[in-house]
Amino acid sequence: MLPLLVVHGGAGHIPSDRVQDSVLGVCAAVRAGYSFLTAGGSSVDAVVEAVANMEDNPRFNAGRGSVLTARGDVEMDALVMDGRDLSSGAVSAVKNIANPVQLARLVMDKTSHACLTAGGAAEFARQMGVQEVSTESLITDYSRARWKKNLDPGAKPVECQMGKMGTVGAVAVDAEGNIACATSTGGMLNKMEGRVGDTPCIGSGGYADNSVGAVSTTGHGEAIMKVVLARLILFHMEQGKSVEEASDLGLSHMRTRVGVWAGSSPWTPKGPGPHASRPIRWPGPLHVTKRCTGAFIKESITLNL
Amino acid sequence: MLPLLVVHGGAGHIPSDRVQDSVLGVCAAVRAGYSFLTAGGSSVDAVVEAVANMEDNPRFNAGRGSVLTARGDVEMDALVMDGRDLSSGAVSAVKNIANPVQLARLVMDKTSHACLTAGGAAEFARQMGVQEVSTESLITDYSRARWKKNLDPGAKPVECQMGKMGTVGAVAVDAEGNIACATSTGGMLNKMEGRVGDTPCIGSGGYADNSVGAVSTTGHGEAIMKVVLARLILFHMEQGKSVEEASDLGLSHMRTRVGVWAGSSPWTPKGPGPHASRPIRWPGPLHVTKRCTGAFIKESITLNL
Repeated sequence: MLPLLVVHGGAGHIPSDRVQDSVLGVCAAVRAGYSFLTAGGSSVDAVVEAVANMEDNPRFNAGRGSVLTARGDVEMDALVMDGRDLSSGAVSAVKNIANPVQLARLVMDKTSHACLTAGGAAEFARQMGVQEVSTESLITDYSRARWKKNLDPGAKPVECQMGKMGTVGAVAVDAEGNIACATSTGGMLNKMEGRVGDTPCIGSGGYADNSVGAVSTTGHGEAIMKVVLARLILFHMEQGKSVEEASDLGLSHMRTRVGVWAGSSPWTPKGPGPHASRPIRWPGPLHVTKRCTGAFIKESITLNL
Repeated sequence: MLPLLVVHGGAGHIPSDRVQDSVLGVCAAVRAGYSFLTAGGSSVDAVVEAVANMEDNPRFNAGRGSVLTARGDVEMDALVMDGRDLSSGAVSAVKNIANPVQLARLVMDKTSHACLTAGGAAEFARQMGVQEVSTESLITDYSRARWKKNLDPGAKPVECQMGKMGTVGAVAVDAEGNIACATSTGGMLNKMEGRVGDTPCIGSGGYADNSVGAVSTTGHGEAIMKVVLARLILFHMEQGKSVEEASDLGLSHMRTRVGVWAGSSPWTPKGPGPHASRPIRWPGPLHVTKRCTGAFIKESITLNL
C-alpha cells in the first residue's frame, strides 16, 4: 500500500460556494506531493510539496490567502517533521515569503535549531536566498473582507474562522516506509501581532515518528496546544490503540478538558490506512464533509483523483 | 504535605567556583515563591515569583545573565501553565524586558492567545506597561566572555553550554491542590537570531495538569522538543507509572531515540514528593550534584532553607 500521502485543507464548515475550489485544491496538492513519492522522493519531499501547493492556492489559510492580523498584516507559521530521526523545522510569525513550509524545511536541514521566529527567520530566509514577496501578494480580497468584518468590536473572530478556511497539512509515508508530516497556516483571523499558534509548536501542530505514525492537526490553535494534540494521539497509538481509537481518545480528551473540537489526520504504518477523526472523515479516497476537505492517495487509487 | 514548590536552576555540570551562588540562588527563589503559597497565593503566583527571582539573579541563564545570541544580543523565552484548566502563556525571542515569565503570565491572563513572539510580544509588553530595560542591563561579564569564546569557528556552543548555566524552572502545588509550572531561559549559547527552543513550546518546556502533575524541563532544547519531553513524562504518569518510572521512561526514550540526556522536575499530587530524573536528583530538601542545582520546599522543611 506504499507510498501514501494524506492532505487536509483545514477544519470547519465550508461555505457551499467554496466547496468546489477546496476539493480541487486538495486534489491538486495530493497529486503534486504524490508525484515526488512515485519518483522515489522521500516522505519529507512529498509533504513539503503538497503543503507548498496549498500555500500557493489562495483558497486556503496558508501562504497566499492567509488570514490577516489585527493590523492587516500577514504572519505565517509552518512545521515539518521527519519521522526517521524526529528532526523537525519550524518558523513562526514569518512575513513576506510565499512558502513558509519550505523555509521550515531549511531550518531543519541547514541549522542546528528546530524553530526560527519573526525577524530572525526573515534573516535566515535571506541567507538561504529565499525570494522576498510583497505582503500585498499574499492577501486576497476574501481575506481582506473577513479582516474588515472582524474589526468590529462585537466580532467573534474564532467563531467566524471555524470552517471558512483552515490550516493545511499533510502526512506521508514513502516507499521505504519513512514517515513525515507538515503543517502550514496564516493563523487565527485578526490575531494579535506576534501570535504563535499550534502549527509551529512541535507535538501540537504535528508530529511524526517512524515507529508510531504521523499526525497533522487543524482547528483552534490555542485549544490544540492545551492538550498537545498530535503527540497525544500518537501516545495512544503507542499504547496499542488503533488509529481510530487513538484519534477519538485525543479529541475526546480535548473536548472534555478544554471544551473545543479539532481535527487531525493521523496515520500509522501498522493500520489499515489514513483516518480523520471527528469532525473530519475521509471514508473514501477523497471525501468532503461540511466540516473539512481532505484527500488521500496511494498507488491503487491514483487514477481516481 | 501542601503547599509545595520545586525549583531548578538548570541542567549540567556546574563549575566548582559557581556552585555556592547557584545554591544560594535556588534557595532564594524557592523561599520567594513559597512566601506566596503560605500567604494563600496560587501555584501560578508561586512559580512565576520563583522563576522571576532567578531571572533577576545573574547566576542563571534567564533574564539578567542570559546567554547571548550569535550577534551578541539577548533573546529570551518563557512559559507558564495553569493545571486547573490547561491555560498557558508563553513568549519567545523577547528582548529588553527583565522578567519574561511575568510577560508570559500576562499573555495567559490578558489575551486570547497562548504565545506571542518577538516584536508582537514587545508591543504587548508596552501595552501592559511593562518597563523596557537596556540590553546591556541583561548582560553579565560572564555571558559576554562565553559568547566571545564561542565566536571561534571551531567552538562547540552546545557542549560548552551544558552545565555552566541552564534554563530555570519551577513546579508548585498550592493549598487548594492546584498545580502550575513555569520555565524561563536565555536559550542556547551563540544561538541564531530568532531561535526558539523548547521553553515556550508547550509540552516540551513544561506542562501542568491538575489531574496528573507538572513538569519543567532543562537541557538541550532541540533534543527535548524532539520527544515533547514534559508531556511524555506526564503521559506515562497518566498510564499509572510512578513519578520516578515516568521520568526515567521519558528520559530513556530521549536517549535512545535522540541520543541526548536532559533533566526534568516532575511532580504529582499522587506521589510521595518531587522527583528529578537522572542526571538531576534531589534526594533531600536541597541537593546539589555536579549536574544541577535544585531545591524543593514544603511546610515541614521550610526552616531548613
